[in-house]
Amino acid sequence: MLNEDKLIQHLQTQSKGFIGDDAAILPSLTEEQYVISKDLLVENIHFRLAYFSPEDLAQKALQANLSDLAAMGAQPLYILCGISIPKPLEAYATDFLNCLMKMCGELNILLIGGDTTAAKDNLFISITAIGKISHHKIKYRNTAQVNDLICIAGNLGWAHIGFTALEKGINVDRKFIESFLRPIAKIKEGRWLAQHEFITSMMDISDGLYIDLKRLCKLSNKGAVINLDSLLTYKEPEQTQQTLLEGGEDYALLFTVNKEKYNDLSKAFAMHFKYDLKLIGHITNNKEIQFLQEGQYVNLELSPYTHFGEKL
Amino acid sequence: MLNEDKLIQHLQTQSKGFIGDDAAILPSLTEEQYVISKDLLVENIHFRLAYFSPEDLAQKALQANLSDLAAMGAQPLYILCGISIPKPLEAYATDFLNCLMKMCGELNILLIGGDTTAAKDNLFISITAIGKISHHKIKYRNTAQVNDLICIAGNLGWAHIGFTALEKGINVDRKFIESFLRPIAKIKEGRWLAQHEFITSMMDISDGLYIDLKRLCKLSNKGAVINLDSLLTYKEPEQTQQTLLEGGEDYALLFTVNKEKYNDLSKAFAMHFKYDLKLIGHITNNKEIQFLQEGQYVNLELSPYTHFGEKL
Repeated sequence: MLNEDKLIQHLQTQSKGFIGDDAAILPSLTEEQYVISKDLLVENIHFRLAYFSPEDLAQKALQANLSDLAAMGAQPLYILCGISIPKPLEAYATDFLNCLMKMCGELNILLIGGDTTAAKDNLFISITAIGKISHHKIKYRNTAQVNDLICIAGNLGWAHIGFTALEKGINVDRKFIESFLRPIAKIKEGRWLAQHEFITSMMDISDGLYIDLKRLCKLSNKGAVINLDSLLTYKEPEQTQQTLLEGGEDYALLFTVNKEKYNDLSKAFAMHFKYDLKLIGHITNNKEIQFLQEGQYVNLELSPYTHFGEKL
Repeated sequence: MLNEDKLIQHLQTQSKGFIGDDAAILPSLTEEQYVISKDLLVENIHFRLAYFSPEDLAQKALQANLSDLAAMGAQPLYILCGISIPKPLEAYATDFLNCLMKMCGELNILLIGGDTTAAKDNLFISITAIGKISHHKIKYRNTAQVNDLICIAGNLGWAHIGFTALEKGINVDRKFIESFLRPIAKIKEGRWLAQHEFITSMMDISDGLYIDLKRLCKLSNKGAVINLDSLLTYKEPEQTQQTLLEGGEDYALLFTVNKEKYNDLSKAFAMHFKYDLKLIGHITNNKEIQFLQEGQYVNLELSPYTHFGEKL
């Protein structure tokens, strides 16, 4: 399997380091900047029609993209939608597009362009999302500082529980199924967090906490300690430590915060959003991801899930 | 087959008329505006690996997108590239991406983001292209005026001759094959034409002269007369009148010009670009596309080609 991280690294070298964050920034002469992201969703790779209604798929396609903008702290404004449609799926695709338009309307997002074509076998969706943010508020992945605390806004591994249940036909709480089929990007949280200078870096968790934290650390040229005792307090009865660390597609926000500011931030966040931030570790200087359990460093064998459960 | 024109119409209603031109315009507080376009290329719908080298495909994918920016008069600046790759095509896709990067470098275009995923059966490519243009120079499709002359910069039907030859294994002049495999967007021509206020509307011809002129007329709430005697002077020995009118993917620019200004424009264009504009008709008030031959209106039975030769 072509390794996306390697590809991005390769392209970064060629494109002078201009890519690799959640969204790209379009240069601007004004204070406000456009940020832009693009995602692909491929039938039988990212979704199955067996359990995705057109409305589910519209929400997943839209929110997965908006999550990239949320991770920069941006306000989504526009999308472009490309869709390639196999003949038997024309009615499904029309429903999908109608749902997408409706959802955009509800979020005050304009669909400003795109492309529709035929496809041979599988439905293919590509959304480009464009948002706006003041230049000095943009949050990046590559700016975490040593001793910063590592926080999460959102759930960990819920979508993976939902996904597994759908694939295996197991009954689980609807909240897990919804997390997988109908994720909600943390747009408000992203914008709120971006107001604060002491939030030193931010990204969204699309591929799982472990792999995404590793990316943030690598780009920041830092390491991290994950406190498993803290992390495990967020474990649902239905899940293992592994799904907490490796389950993807929850679209929680992962960010680092100056440790002096954490207490105030945490209180203000809980008051504003009616749920608590998760504090799971801190940034180090040693470029590794380490795990601490009951005061001891422990080794974990981790290899992240890909879509549909294969290992990367 | 889902009808893209109908879909666009439907989406336009819902999105308050904000879509339907070659590229969308991002609002800006400054004189300069970003324009953005998005295209899909699907294996066995738009291209076959049997005769597209990775380099051909990179050029086709890139230039087809840049052509949308050229049609607005914009200077291309950035692209985002999404690609879904079936396992057997990983080496091909890596070559494709390397060629794409190289071509972007030569055109001073930065690749600023994208997404790579696996795919089940067919290779999918989605490029988003972003360009810049001064607000008052942007050219639209919906602004043609009655009595304007209809001009074309570029070839008509060459790509279709090349496509047919490749599909049927016929030998034709390499220029036709190149037109299909390795089109070149008329970026310089688009920017040059956009300087002139008396160019009243512009778009690129991606689906064929007849269907694209019909779109321009419909959006402008006008009609057109195509002078077949003029048009046929541009016919290559290898082609029929039908391929002139209906062959797509040449990415010529179709534009309308105030008739008082045509002679000067035509001379200046030929001097600047070392080839002649094609003058093929004029805009009318009657909302139909009519054909004039030896001074008589004639009826033509036309139904545009789609990719790979099916009728729309």
